[in-house]
Amino acid sequence: MKIGTVTGSVWATRKADCLHGQTFLVVNTLTGTVVAADHVGAGEGDKVLLVTGTAATKFSMEAPVDAAIVAILDKDN
Amino acid sequence: MKIGTVTGSVWATRKADCLHGQTFLVVNTLTGTVVAADHVGAGEGDKVLLVTGTAATKFSMEAPVDAAIVAILDKDN
Amino acid sequence: MKIGTVTGSVWATRKADCLHGQTFLVVNTLTGTVVAADHVGAGEGDKVLLVTGTAATKFSMEAPVDAAIVAILDKDN
Amino acid sequence: MKIGTVTGSVWATRKADCLHGQTFLVVNTLTGTVVAADHVGAGEGDKVLLVTGTAATKFSMEAPVDAAIVAILDKDN
Amino acid sequence: MKIGTVTGSVWATRKADCLHGQTFLVVNTLTGTVVAADHVGAGEGDKVLLVTGTAATKFSMEAPVDAAIVAILDKDN
Repeated sequence: MKIGTVTGSVWATRKADCLHGQTFLVVNTLTGTVVAADHVGAGEGDKVLLVTGTAATKFSMEAPVDAAIVAILDKDN
Repeated sequence: MKIGTVTGSVWATRKADCLHGQTFLVVNTLTGTVVAADHVGAGEGDKVLLVTGTAATKFSMEAPVDAAIVAILDKDN
Repeated sequence: MKIGTVTGSVWATRKADCLHGQTFLVVNTLTGTVVAADHVGAGEGDKVLLVTGTAATKFSMEAPVDAAIVAILDKDN
Repeated sequence: MKIGTVTGSVWATRKADCLHGQTFLVVNTLTGTVVAADHVGAGEGDKVLLVTGTAATKFSMEAPVDAAIVAILDKDN
Repeated sequence: MKIGTVTGSVWATRKADCLHGQTFLVVNTLTGTVVAADHVGAGEGDKVLLVTGTAATKFSMEAPVDAAIVAILDKDN
């Protein structure tokens, strides 16, 4: 996993049906910017743990998603 | 997922049978150019959400595809 | 997928049994050189569409292959 | 797999349910820093073998994990 | 797949149970160094074909392995 910081969200009216109900946040990591599905209730400024690839798909109910936020890091990390 | 901009399309007469009926668009992202299957009706100039890897395969009816456009971002993103 | 150009082929007498019958071509892309299984009959100089990862495995009859040529681009692309 | 060195751990009170009971260690490799699930009892300073992608998911009981420590290298490697 | 050269091996006494019986070789490629499971009997100095990701897992009897040597290239390649 990678550590990143949430910097915002993206909105898309036209999208794949299976993406409805998913929240997408923009996450900055040391190696670039990723848009990730969020299922733990992260918000702007949160330091998060980011999973990519097939693991993100499974975590997002088999939706076509390749990045997901799986944890919010404690502030003293 | 990554954010990219559609810049064109590619045509291939000789291709794997399982790719027939798929539309392939060229998408520029911050980290390079990718050819992606499109199932949401994106067009040149659209800002899109790009999924890569196994998630793209599932989204493209198990066709041998490793990148797919899953959403068109709203213009005010 | 990525766009690349076929520059040659590789030969291996000692290989995994499940690779017998597969043709392997060397493909140059903007981000590096890849050896890919070919099932569409590409030849040296052809501009091709390259799929990587699990999608390539499925396309190559579950052989241990992580890159495959899935289309030959038309000359006017 | 990649070779890396464990440099610490991360804590997250708010996380996906399926991650409870997993230990997450920070691992430095030649190409960057990764947070990996540990199931072999690695500690700070250990040189470890790191697996990424779907293999890490399987090794971590299908948890949404994309990196896992699968071995501690002997000191004379 | 990538082409690489075997430069050595790694030893780990403490490792995941499912890795016992696997041989791990260090392979240098143009884009970096990888530790790969070997099932074709490669040795130091051999030029090999390297598969990464899920394909390597399947080839290694579902062990948590993300890179595998699947062929030894003929010397005249």
